[in-house]
Formats: sequence, structure tokens, C-alpha cells
Amino acid sequence: MAITVDALPTPSLLLDQGRLDRNIATMRTHLAALGVGFRPHLKTAKSLDVALRAMHGASGPAIVSTLREAAFFAARGVRDLLYGVGITPQKLDEVGAIRSRYGADLAIIVDNLAQAEAVAHWSTTQAHPLPVLIEIDSDGHRSGVRPDDAATLVAIGRALHAGGAILRGVLTHAGGSYALDRPDALAAAADAERDAVVGAAAILRAAGLPCPVVSMGSTPTARFARDLTGVTEVRCGVFMFGDLVQAGIGSCGIADIAISVLTTVIGHQRAKGWIITDAGWMALSRDRGTSKQRVDQFYGVVCDPGGLPIPDLVVVDANQEHGIVAVRPGSAGILPDLPVGTRLRILPNHACATGAPYDAYHVIGEAGTVVARWPRFNGW
Amino acid sequence: MAITVDALPTPSLLLDQGRLDRNIATMRTHLAALGVGFRPHLKTAKSLDVALRAMHGASGPAIVSTLREAAFFAARGVRDLLYGVGITPQKLDEVGAIRSRYGADLAIIVDNLAQAEAVAHWSTTQAHPLPVLIEIDSDGHRSGVRPDDAATLVAIGRALHAGGAILRGVLTHAGGSYALDRPDALAAAADAERDAVVGAAAILRAAGLPCPVVSMGSTPTARFARDLTGVTEVRCGVFMFGDLVQAGIGSCGIADIAISVLTTVIGHQRAKGWIITDAGWMALSRDRGTSKQRVDQFYGVVCDPGGLPIPDLVVVDANQEHGIVAVRPGSAGILPDLPVGTRLRILPNHACATGAPYDAYHVIGEAGTVVARWPRFNGW
Repeated sequence: MAITVDALPTPSLLLDQGRLDRNIATMRTHLAALGVGFRPHLKTAKSLDVALRAMHGASGPAIVSTLREAAFFAARGVRDLLYGVGITPQKLDEVGAIRSRYGADLAIIVDNLAQAEAVAHWSTTQAHPLPVLIEIDSDGHRSGVRPDDAATLVAIGRALHAGGAILRGVLTHAGGSYALDRPDALAAAADAERDAVVGAAAILRAAGLPCPVVSMGSTPTARFARDLTGVTEVRCGVFMFGDLVQAGIGSCGIADIAISVLTTVIGHQRAKGWIITDAGWMALSRDRGTSKQRVDQFYGVVCDPGGLPIPDLVVVDANQEHGIVAVRPGSAGILPDLPVGTRLRILPNHACATGAPYDAYHVIGEAGTVVARWPRFNGW
Repeated sequence: MAITVDALPTPSLLLDQGRLDRNIATMRTHLAALGVGFRPHLKTAKSLDVALRAMHGASGPAIVSTLREAAFFAARGVRDLLYGVGITPQKLDEVGAIRSRYGADLAIIVDNLAQAEAVAHWSTTQAHPLPVLIEIDSDGHRSGVRPDDAATLVAIGRALHAGGAILRGVLTHAGGSYALDRPDALAAAADAERDAVVGAAAILRAAGLPCPVVSMGSTPTARFARDLTGVTEVRCGVFMFGDLVQAGIGSCGIADIAISVLTTVIGHQRAKGWIITDAGWMALSRDRGTSKQRVDQFYGVVCDPGGLPIPDLVVVDANQEHGIVAVRPGSAGILPDLPVGTRLRILPNHACATGAPYDAYHVIGEAGTVVARWPRFNGW
């Protein structure tokens, strides 16, 4: 029997299957045309059902952001995995256990000599060589070795290669691309990301070190890349779902956003023009990434139960379990009459953050009915 | 065998048992001296172990923010429960089921006639009278009937009382107190909260309607209340743990904060004065509540593994799984030498938000050892 969103409890996390599949197909086609491999990031979805749609095959490749994700996907058959947060010495036993228990090729990343020496030491003493990529800082955003710091790059590479680990390559993430919103600037960011990681690979190879993998990626740079010569794979994750931050950047359109939060009207403060709902910041997340963009979407864009945005209606504020829906400040929008019990869908700022408290996606099929429940997980 | 935080994975959520117990004892003593009942809010903890320490007894009373919390605690023996978010007609079957299945006295709240009529209708048709409180808007913060809107109050009261539900009383939450930070202003906010809800009760009683419960509460107003004449119970939750927002308000001191996130140093960007850790905004939450306070604590205050703050060290920025630790901007602090692998504890902005992705508290005893693991839950 076909059920609709009216039968779901609120708040619930909805996933539009058609949009998800189109977003994945679009990115796959784009990257295939550029001649690079594709390693989807599973940190946004944290779901096997989504992973199986996004990956090239059931065994991967994929990248994850926590060892819980690594263990979860390895236990379910994903073999080609990369843990994309700089390793700590304390986590090496768990990395080794996931590799051994599931036969998974789980690689790790480092950006300093202390990490490299710890990994080499562990690899030698455990007689279990761990595959390692060196993280490159392509835009000053976060972690990584500067791509022109040849001395550090080669020192880390030698510590790994000569020390008993497997030097698998270099990787970077152009996190700075999230601050851009012009296609030419985004294309330039992709060029810069490529140049940084390809240059770092050249430094290692010139020093006689192996560097088979040259990995880059963020949703915005993946989307706007034009020439990835020298790159072997691109990583990205949030593109699968899209969100308001990505729409503000230009990586997707509002109509591409596959994820939304179903909520119910619980009351009104008519003198203030407020509609109160049962989706607060716990349901939508505290992420206000669009507050720095050209169009501030507050806590989210309000849609009808079918997923169509209601003009100029946003979640202007949020408490833990209460959302405050109102006309966008400064707009000419008119507050619609939405009685208690009305269902609404909210497009969130940031898909990765919004998922945190939910244990499942309710999957919406092309006819607008609920066609599946896909479990998701969280934590570390 | 006593284990220390060094043996825990990172990020992990830590709960200091001594501080938790002291925070609860302090609030209990304060409210008992004011002659009012105490209904702890379990939305922050979402843990039976914490609830049993906070409640008067194993059967309650308590307030919750989701029906999942209501069902969880009812299934574990809590009988006197209040669901503190305005009810939707769609949730009434679940409310009834929780009441019947567990024999729980689960009450609900309304602030408009449409809700009241839906509850009365359900109560009559199901031959199951639901107990209901009317929400009062004491400070313009969110939901509720204005306390001087006698016509609406009495109309809702009559719709419930004459319509087959149980009119149990009135309730308010002074959410506006979160914007204050002076003891006199907070005490005045508690007075105003009291006056609003006591006045609303008087209106109902003058109309011949029952109003046995007069309920108010927020952590700041509970903490600073001096005279609660006419109030029957106070509700609050975040006081158990405390957090940086509450410390900024003055509801607790930094040294009272019982909750923290354990993290590990994974690298450095020395030219920028950055220490990179494995606790990003997923581990700390996106909540930046202190950004509007006199002292902005960014994404959290950095402490040593024993929980002692390191002077002028804060998490200045965060990505999903990366924290960026640095000296507080504008301060004279000196960046300490914290090698890769160093453990740190971060005091978060907002306890309620930080818990969302975790499935347990690691409980720290007086000797600094890990004495228990208390499960927690999330979602709806």
C-alpha cells in the first residue's frame, strides 16, 4: 500500500530518491568525462543504501570521516576505503583491526612527521604495512603540508616508505571553495587544487618515492573542474543530497536538493507573523552556513508537503524542538494560512549536519509516496 | 581496573559525575527553599542514569521534549511525564498509546483553540481523557497565549474542560532569559515569568475552571528566582550539565560544567598558530550561543585531560571532523606545545546540542577515572 508523508511522524528526515539518483548520475558522468576516478564521501549519508547507489561497485571505492563509518562499511563489503581525517597514534590498532577483520584495504592520511613515524613504527612492529596518503594544504583552509614545502613532503614520504608503511600518494581538499559562488572562481579553485596535489606528487616522485594516487575533491571543485590532468581520483559527498549552502555556492539548484525535514504546524503567533512548527534546531541542525552567503536562508527554506518551495517562506529562528516560520525579512512575501496540523518540508542549510540526530531516511519515490526506510547511523 | 580518559576513543562525550551530582543537589536545595516542586527536563540528558539522579524518585516527575523521550522513560518506570512541545493532532494516538501501554500519566500542552478542540475530540471519541496544560507566553520568546489574553485563555480552558479532556493547569518557559547576564535582570525575569503564569492561572480560576498546576522554568530563571509564590513547580534541564552559554549568563561557573568532549591532537599549522584536533562541529555541535554573549567562547574552551582550562585556548573554528585550536583572538595567551597524540577536553557552548551524535556518556569519577558508560539516545 502506498503511504504518503502524511503518515510519517514529525520531525522526520526525507530523502527524494529521484533527485538523489540524478545528482549521483550527473557527478559520475562529469567525472568520467574528465577521465578521473570517483571516490564518494560517505560522511554525509552514513547509510549503506545510499553508499551502494553512489559507489562504482559494492566494494567501493569510498572515503569516510570516522572509524565507525570505516568499520560499518567494511563489515558490509566495502573493501577500498580511505579514512580522511589525520590519524592519531591511538587509532592505529583500530585501523589494523578493521583491515584484518574484514579484509578491507583501509588507507589513512598524515600531514606531519610525528604521525608518519608513528604509522611506520606500528607497521613494522605489527608486521602489517599500512597504506598512507600525505595530506596537502591546497588553500590554507585546514590541515596538510604546503605543496611547495618539498623538505617536509619528502621527509614524511621517506619516513613512511623507508619505515615500513606503504606510501600510496597525496590527497587534498579545497575546503576554501565553500566561500565562493562564481563559476569562474570555482573553476579556478579546482585548477589550484589540482595544481597543488599534482605538484606535490611530482616532488615525491622526483625524490624517488612512489605516488600512485593523486586525490582531490570537494563538492564545489568537483562540480566546476574543467581539466584534471594528473589527478587520479576525485572525492566528494554532499553533492548526493545537495543543500542550501551548496545551492548558494552554485553546486546545485534548489530543485536538486534531495534531503528535507518533514514537520507539522503546532501553533501561531499571529501578531508577529510567526507559524510555529515541531522542527527546531535539533531537527534542522544549528548550521547557519547560508548566513555568510549572498542569500541568507536562515534555518531553512519552507516547502509544501510535495517539496515545492513556498515563496519567501523561511524558518527565521529555531529553538531545540520549535521552528519559527515567517516571511523572509525584507521580502514582499505574504504569510500563507497554514492551520495547526499542516505538514511542511524544510530544505536545510547543510545536509551533513542535519542528519546527526536521525536514525533513518524516509525515502520518497517519484510519485511522492514513501517507498523505503533506509537506516543511518552517527557517532564515532 | 581503573581506566583513565587516555584509554577512550576520540571524540568521546565525558560527564563528570561529581559536578553533575553537585549541580543537581544545588538546584534541588534552592527550589525546596522556595517551596516549589521540581520537574527536571530530560531533553538535555536523554539518559535513564542521569534521569534517576535528577528526578525526585524513579517515577518522576519529569518533562520531555519528544515523544521518543516520553516512550523511553515511560517504558523504564517514569510515570509522571509532561511532553513540553505543543501537540499536533497527528501525535494524539501515540500519546494515548504511551499512556495506556506503560500506565504513564503523560500530559500534553496546547496554546490555541484548534489544538484544544482536537485534544477534546480525541479524548471523547477514545474515551480516554488526556491531561492538558495551557502554554503561556511570558516574554514573547516563542509559543503560548499572552497572559493578559483572558478571552483566548478561557476559550481554550473551556474547550478542554467541557470537551472531555482534563484541564490540568498552565505552564510557561522564560526563554528570553537566555539573553540576560546580570543577576538583577535574571531575578526580574523570574518574577515576570512567575507573574505571567500565576496571573493566567487566576484568570482560569476566576472563570470557574480548574488549574491545579502552575508550572514555570528555564535554567536561568530557576537559578535566580527569589520568590515563587503561586507557582507549583519549576522545570529546567541544562543546569544538570551546565555549559558555556549558561556560564556566560551566570547560571553556573566554568568549573561547574559537567560535560566535555575528549579529543586528540592530530596535527599543527605552526605558521598560523593552529593545533588541529579530531573534534570538529559534529563532535562539539554547530551551536555558537556564546557568540552573542560578552565573552565569545568560539567552538569551546580547551582544557587539559583532567578538565582544567588551559588559559586563553579555545576552538576558534571547526569543520565536520576537525577542530582548530588557537589562542583566543586578542588575548595575550601563549600557544602551548601540544604534540600529536595529546588528549584535550573541550567545554561546549550548549550541552543539549553537543549530545546529538553520541550514543553514550563516559562517566568520570572523582579520581579522574572512567567509572561508567551511561547510554543516551536521540531522534524522535
